[in-house]
Amino acid sequence: MAVQKMSQLFVRTLREDPADAEVPSHRWLVRAGYIRRAAPGIYSWLPLGLKVLAKVEQIVREEMVAIGAQEVRFPALLPREPYETTHRWTEYGPNLFRLKDRKGGDYLLGPTHEEMFTLMVKDLYSSYKDLPLTLFQIQTKYRDEARPRAGLLRGREFIMKDSYTFDMDAEGLQASYETHRGAYINVMDRLGLDYVIVKAMSGAMGGSASEEFLAIAPNGEDTFVRSPGGYAANVEAVTVVPPAAVDASATPAPLVIHTPGAGTIDTLVAAVNDTAPRADRAWTGADTLKNVVFMLANPDGTKEALIVGLPGDRDVDVKRLEAAIAPAEAVAFGDADFAAYPALVKGYIGPAKDRQAMLGKESVSGMRYLVDPRVVDGTAWVTGANVADHHVVNLVMGRDFSADGVIDVAEVRAGDPAPDGSGPLELARGVEMGHIFQLGTKYAESLGLKVLDANGKLATVTMGSYGIGISRAVAMVAETTCDERGLAWPRNLAPYDVIVIATGKDEALAVEAERIALELSVSGLDVLLDDRKASPGVKFTDAEVLGIPTVVVVGRGLANGVVEVRDRTAGTKDEVAVDDVVSRVIADVRGE
Amino acid sequence: MAVQKMSQLFVRTLREDPADAEVPSHRWLVRAGYIRRAAPGIYSWLPLGLKVLAKVEQIVREEMVAIGAQEVRFPALLPREPYETTHRWTEYGPNLFRLKDRKGGDYLLGPTHEEMFTLMVKDLYSSYKDLPLTLFQIQTKYRDEARPRAGLLRGREFIMKDSYTFDMDAEGLQASYETHRGAYINVMDRLGLDYVIVKAMSGAMGGSASEEFLAIAPNGEDTFVRSPGGYAANVEAVTVVPPAAVDASATPAPLVIHTPGAGTIDTLVAAVNDTAPRADRAWTGADTLKNVVFMLANPDGTKEALIVGLPGDRDVDVKRLEAAIAPAEAVAFGDADFAAYPALVKGYIGPAKDRQAMLGKESVSGMRYLVDPRVVDGTAWVTGANVADHHVVNLVMGRDFSADGVIDVAEVRAGDPAPDGSGPLELARGVEMGHIFQLGTKYAESLGLKVLDANGKLATVTMGSYGIGISRAVAMVAETTCDERGLAWPRNLAPYDVIVIATGKDEALAVEAERIALELSVSGLDVLLDDRKASPGVKFTDAEVLGIPTVVVVGRGLANGVVEVRDRTAGTKDEVAVDDVVSRVIADVRGE
Repeated sequence: MAVQKMSQLFVRTLREDPADAEVPSHRWLVRAGYIRRAAPGIYSWLPLGLKVLAKVEQIVREEMVAIGAQEVRFPALLPREPYETTHRWTEYGPNLFRLKDRKGGDYLLGPTHEEMFTLMVKDLYSSYKDLPLTLFQIQTKYRDEARPRAGLLRGREFIMKDSYTFDMDAEGLQASYETHRGAYINVMDRLGLDYVIVKAMSGAMGGSASEEFLAIAPNGEDTFVRSPGGYAANVEAVTVVPPAAVDASATPAPLVIHTPGAGTIDTLVAAVNDTAPRADRAWTGADTLKNVVFMLANPDGTKEALIVGLPGDRDVDVKRLEAAIAPAEAVAFGDADFAAYPALVKGYIGPAKDRQAMLGKESVSGMRYLVDPRVVDGTAWVTGANVADHHVVNLVMGRDFSADGVIDVAEVRAGDPAPDGSGPLELARGVEMGHIFQLGTKYAESLGLKVLDANGKLATVTMGSYGIGISRAVAMVAETTCDERGLAWPRNLAPYDVIVIATGKDEALAVEAERIALELSVSGLDVLLDDRKASPGVKFTDAEVLGIPTVVVVGRGLANGVVEVRDRTAGTKDEVAVDDVVSRVIADVRGE
Repeated sequence: MAVQKMSQLFVRTLREDPADAEVPSHRWLVRAGYIRRAAPGIYSWLPLGLKVLAKVEQIVREEMVAIGAQEVRFPALLPREPYETTHRWTEYGPNLFRLKDRKGGDYLLGPTHEEMFTLMVKDLYSSYKDLPLTLFQIQTKYRDEARPRAGLLRGREFIMKDSYTFDMDAEGLQASYETHRGAYINVMDRLGLDYVIVKAMSGAMGGSASEEFLAIAPNGEDTFVRSPGGYAANVEAVTVVPPAAVDASATPAPLVIHTPGAGTIDTLVAAVNDTAPRADRAWTGADTLKNVVFMLANPDGTKEALIVGLPGDRDVDVKRLEAAIAPAEAVAFGDADFAAYPALVKGYIGPAKDRQAMLGKESVSGMRYLVDPRVVDGTAWVTGANVADHHVVNLVMGRDFSADGVIDVAEVRAGDPAPDGSGPLELARGVEMGHIFQLGTKYAESLGLKVLDANGKLATVTMGSYGIGISRAVAMVAETTCDERGLAWPRNLAPYDVIVIATGKDEALAVEAERIALELSVSGLDVLLDDRKASPGVKFTDAEVLGIPTVVVVGRGLANGVVEVRDRTAGTKDEVAVDDVVSRVIADVRGE
């Protein structure tokens, strides 16, 4: 490979942060000239960025091929019909880019390709002998995010590897899933990411078991929990283990009390302990039952009210709620909505009033009412009395009120018990790098993917679906390796192995720098030569911003036969005899 | 690389032609399981097809890198604004896929990226010292073709290499253009295509000089001409050299004659020679002036009538007309349109009536009137008299009528003189594989790409734009190499170097086939092993359909120590000692 001269490389570093940069990776990828924004959430790749992208792509491809996956490529512009059949044309809601062609036909820009892969296998295969099968593609995908952010971390056009497995039964699917899981572990390891594998919900994908590979990052969008005993899940997937039912035979009858000014859980608890103290212990926020009203917007445009009852010391976690109600979305329950349900007394909503059910499908309000799993039979609650400035005490679940079902969407807190009994949970943040799903037969059933089994009978194929964000991985590696001076690539992903810099105006320095660059290049290294007529300071700064792992500085020391070798990540500077520099750099690059 | 077993390869060959296949490449790429249609003009790539695609891509990439081009990648989903600035948002008309995002913002799917590249260079560069610059990308593009056809040859989602050069002046552009031309010649040669480089019009690209690389194909969509002296152009770009003006001083005054029933050029010529014979020679069809009315639809929705006057022995070539009037499109001039222009007497339209101008902006009709370049001053014509059943004879251009200008859109015929005097033209057909343009300053001017020149003054950058159809190249190579038995890839593009087949049920044959396959694979060849339990006939047929260049048949001859080596393209079959087969195949593959 020829030495790339910096004077000819299509790159410019910026001294200022881009105005829209929220996270370090975004800031540095733009400042170092790796990417540029073309539109919100849509980026162009400059030469340096594209080289890193290609290396990430290649790692993923190698690990896919290693598990016997075969590469294909589907279009990004897709016809509506298959997505109509699986209802995703509608369920994706505003996240889907939809368009019409010149004849008025409906198309979409593919966010994921379950439908297309299912139909392709249906087209080609017909027998159990053809399975198992694993296919993958590396392809540009589209999602019209409401809030594209953080550069490549959450884009609207992005590059993904998606793969799909096809098996005859659940056992086969489990094996395919485990194989993919292993490949993803290899990918994450080769990317050098600090990651955790967490239980996940499958969301719009359908299906059952699923796990996410989260890169641990303090500013990550996803919250996950883990326990000392090894439990790990994203917050959407955490489940509360319901406590045992309580014997309420000794619990006094409900008592309505006057609670003027008790506008917060704290003031309410104080008022109740004052007016209607509990015999065994004081009332706490965990004894209050907060009833939060949402309006759910379904993808087909219909709306439906939902009331969530949960302990007053916890809020509804919006992400957990969204995951629980998907594909519907929760929107604000406005004044007009309250007006439409006159039974609701804002601020004093409760499930019962004068022994009459106020919440629930069969109640006075007719509004769907779901409660937190902690609201088990026999538990006694302090909650709204459906009268302004009044609450009710000792309202017992199962005795004095009931619900339409359970919804597990309260915020998870550090210290909460892990559902598998493996200890208290800690909370941390991460970025979703990969997601593996056991889809089961959902897509095969709706699109009719059946093959003949060993007995000559038609059997529905069982599928898995697996994704890795390739462009996101570029950003995440940048995010976790950069520092206050710029990018700092691991050697296996760096756009160049080494950058050679001559400092000073002496022509001999430039000549020697070029000689060293050439020798390194002949030895098979990818070499950048900063041949610009710029000050040493500018060159040093740019080399650090670009994040090339090794910097060779040919400067004043050359008169004494030495040059400097800097390691961008370690921050070390070594003086090396000029005759040894090539072998030294080669050893560094190859990790010898 | 591991041996790929046919039993596990995601492929199925079809015995029947797909219903929509118009050309052999489409038929065979589908039948051999290389591609599948996802929607009109939109295809999925199966493993075999993707391998060929990657090889074509790599050839193009290598030749681009060899001329110092730097690879970047722009989004396919692009914002409207830059295309609005250059008017292409409108000018592309229905060929552009347009869509709105969730906020109502306008986007398009990029058909070509001049705007984006121009803006990127403007963003990064500011000085003449930064130039020349060559950038390229290999990327998925979109065009909403009215008539997608012939599989990958004219698709709506397709893969292109597009590149752009940036220079300070016309001389630099010329040099960049020549360099690209050389790279394209290398690409076409490496693809093994029989091609011709023809002068072209630049169409919607704007700019001046441009050439097309046409693969010669009898069923190609593009017609081109060439002369014995080396002139070559596509029909849109051929120009008629206007004859010298004629001295009309002795030409008699115009004479209106009654021509009942002269509904064709032939009957008209006969009638005129009968009624108003010419003194020097007989009238011919080339002396008649046919006036054809079109309605032009502009991209902004406005319409305008256009009358083309041309010798009656030639028709208007619709492709030449479309190229000449782009971005407007010609639509039928219907009865309602005729009603709107009562001065027009259908079938008897002429440029003058009783010394009064009937056609032209300043005429009675007010309709724009353009004439063929052969209609020079002094030429005498037989043409419509604007009275039913009447024509006028000896109507002299420049004396009795005039036009608003010249339009060169008459059909080109074999035998017509080349415009450069290099002899008579022959016509042939081809498929556009590449197109190189000297854009000049059109995009740089409208988007403000200026850099400081050597004198410190702002100068507009001069650009070139260059495209190669990558997915089209896959189809075109298939088209020109396939035969009645299937695909027949050249060795450098084949998905596998060799396929090894065992025929017969003897287990020893299968074992030996696998051993040979493994040895070939260890030697670095890409090997497919047909391990299926299928008849020899099925295996032979499939090997031929797939088009793998070398077929090794392990059959009955093995008992005598020989196997068969077949060359798919040459059609040869050689018996080779089993001990020699590996070295023989390696030599064949490497061309030794």
